[in-house]
Amino acid sequence: MSVRFYNAQILTMESDSIITGELWTNGDSISYIGPAQVHSDIEFDREIDCKGNLLMPGLKNAHTHSAMTFSRSLADNYCLDDWLHKAIFPREAKLTPEHVYWFSKLAYAEYLAGGVTACFDMYFHKDRNAEAAVETGFRHVFCGAANDYGGMEELEDYYVRLNSFDPLISFVYGFHAEYTTCEDNLKFISDLAHKYKAPVYAHISETKNEVLGCIERYGISPVKLFDKMGIYDFGGGGFHCVWFDDEDMEIYKNRGLYAVFNGCSNLKLASGIAKVYKFIDKGINIAIGTDGAGSNNALNMFREMFLASTLSNLEVDGGAFVSPYEILKAATVGGAHAMGLDSCDILAPGKKADICMIDMQHPTMNPVNNTISNIVYSGHPGIVKLTMVAGKILYEDGKYLTIDLDEVLSESNKLLKEIL
Amino acid sequence: MSVRFYNAQILTMESDSIITGELWTNGDSISYIGPAQVHSDIEFDREIDCKGNLLMPGLKNAHTHSAMTFSRSLADNYCLDDWLHKAIFPREAKLTPEHVYWFSKLAYAEYLAGGVTACFDMYFHKDRNAEAAVETGFRHVFCGAANDYGGMEELEDYYVRLNSFDPLISFVYGFHAEYTTCEDNLKFISDLAHKYKAPVYAHISETKNEVLGCIERYGISPVKLFDKMGIYDFGGGGFHCVWFDDEDMEIYKNRGLYAVFNGCSNLKLASGIAKVYKFIDKGINIAIGTDGAGSNNALNMFREMFLASTLSNLEVDGGAFVSPYEILKAATVGGAHAMGLDSCDILAPGKKADICMIDMQHPTMNPVNNTISNIVYSGHPGIVKLTMVAGKILYEDGKYLTIDLDEVLSESNKLLKEIL
Repeated sequence: MSVRFYNAQILTMESDSIITGELWTNGDSISYIGPAQVHSDIEFDREIDCKGNLLMPGLKNAHTHSAMTFSRSLADNYCLDDWLHKAIFPREAKLTPEHVYWFSKLAYAEYLAGGVTACFDMYFHKDRNAEAAVETGFRHVFCGAANDYGGMEELEDYYVRLNSFDPLISFVYGFHAEYTTCEDNLKFISDLAHKYKAPVYAHISETKNEVLGCIERYGISPVKLFDKMGIYDFGGGGFHCVWFDDEDMEIYKNRGLYAVFNGCSNLKLASGIAKVYKFIDKGINIAIGTDGAGSNNALNMFREMFLASTLSNLEVDGGAFVSPYEILKAATVGGAHAMGLDSCDILAPGKKADICMIDMQHPTMNPVNNTISNIVYSGHPGIVKLTMVAGKILYEDGKYLTIDLDEVLSESNKLLKEIL
Repeated sequence: MSVRFYNAQILTMESDSIITGELWTNGDSISYIGPAQVHSDIEFDREIDCKGNLLMPGLKNAHTHSAMTFSRSLADNYCLDDWLHKAIFPREAKLTPEHVYWFSKLAYAEYLAGGVTACFDMYFHKDRNAEAAVETGFRHVFCGAANDYGGMEELEDYYVRLNSFDPLISFVYGFHAEYTTCEDNLKFISDLAHKYKAPVYAHISETKNEVLGCIERYGISPVKLFDKMGIYDFGGGGFHCVWFDDEDMEIYKNRGLYAVFNGCSNLKLASGIAKVYKFIDKGINIAIGTDGAGSNNALNMFREMFLASTLSNLEVDGGAFVSPYEILKAATVGGAHAMGLDSCDILAPGKKADICMIDMQHPTMNPVNNTISNIVYSGHPGIVKLTMVAGKILYEDGKYLTIDLDEVLSESNKLLKEIL
């Protein structure tokens, strides 16, 4: 498939400047970005008049549990601890691969409608989930979801197998969190990281209690523990990163680790505020994710960007005021790098064609004082006109090209009854 | 005009229950809500198959400055004080009635795309603004915008004139804030309130500095000052309400005043967090608004509802956890009552047909564990299929019926250059 987008504004995210011109794709990649030029020798499968709308890298949802759409609005008004133990774990015990397949497809529909082209997903029943992703054409990076209740033995098998399953699928080592993973299992993870020289991710310092518990058990914070145990020797990072102290940040900075922020979930579960401004000031790698629909409850990266930009203002007298460009970079380039998707970070020839088109005619994108600020502070999924992954248009003007939405809604609402 | 909506889910907001059936309109009002019934004697102008989508009262944006769309993304990363004096006031000085006309139309387009059917708007050049509202068919409640720099003399004239201008237009007494209004002018407002037995609104306790300044000037908080001066003798309320103490809340409670929350603006301008949970606990009347696009930067009531629900969780150890139904009520019924629109609060026969239709097929509205939670925690303007004001459909499936969007975008982007 080859597509010519013309009359476009293009925000490549290589810098904050917006160019006017064309973007061409060939197969799964971008073949040209630049001014309109003669192309009579090329036969495109489609030529799309962008009418001044904006092409930008697809948003990267750098921390989610896609199949948790089953738990959207199922268990509101809990703190993390109660939410997990009273509402979520008992239901998750009933989930089958079939549930994960359909509830992930529901998540993909929501991602695509919101300009998201890839997710970094920690969950189980991964094989059936991978089938859902490939059928959809969605780029899915699995993160290991092991903890003391299961998943340790399969980590290596997944790593080997899923990393050669399909170009859309990859697997990164990960585990749930320190508080659900004993020292022996942490050691086991560290050994895997060393064997494969691989990065590792986990939920980290999401709540104050988590950090206090870790200090009680080991005398140090989760970040320092993982660092000391060699888990971070080949990179990786953590999700949430709310209760980091300055030393934790130094470790992230020095090791080039990725801090992935999840502001909506942290608000909803009363976990606290990540000091996004400090991570940016220190030059730490950052990315943004929605967390699962059970604790957000949306999979809306625009709302995440707004909160990543503004929540920090509560932490500093007089406001922290981070740059909206840094936030948009975190939600695109930063996420891609965190997930190991270096070829999906910016728009440039040779990079994967993972693109979303923003409706510049939407009132909330006008007037045009600053397009990047408009996206970060005013954007919502309703401004997304088209989403393309690996050169394939998956969503356009409210329609799904690879997902039968009626079927997904009917199956997921039917299957829901089995796990309530 | 008469419309028959059938195959609908209907959330009347008289309670939290959702009924299945039909809603009919006749002229500007609702004529029937209930099960499908024989209606062969009635000729409707339109019959709309809702296909299971949800009808609910239109959202009421209970605090905004519509024409400030000109300042969207124009002055990010300021605290309120600097933002007003360095970025906003100098530009506002250049605004003409023509600017206000077009930038308000831009705001109406955004409101309608986001399910908003009425706004409570504090701004100037009201006559031309009223024309824009009537042409659009949008319900616009003006709030007096007087302060020491102007507007005091016109208040009474506006009150008399705009309240009989058109059924879509009304005017409520208001002034900017204590810190821009001297004691004589406050007295003048109080006298007007008494003369007309009318409610009064103002920005109140938005920042800590505002409250401290008032205490320095008068020895008491703005709420106590207004109360003492008789400004609240016939009701009204305030916008923002971030730095209320318990006594301020008691005054609001005892007088039945309305606290209007603006979480996004308060985050973006680093003003703080309103203790929404406390207002709800105490049974104080509450409503929700976006504030202007210069400090939000969207006019997105869904994002406001999410923040009104969740920001409080940061204020209470272990989470405050307010009910999503209370939040949705604030954004519909509460807003209507604050604005004096008692006939636009709930869906019921005889009430005005101010309605929005929510797309229940949007992935973010599924699965259906709890529709109200889905709206409050996951909703965004992209889930709005149709918006009707006073029985007239103004927005449907992305199209505007009374606004020429191309013209509004082109005029507002052109006029912008005159005020930069």
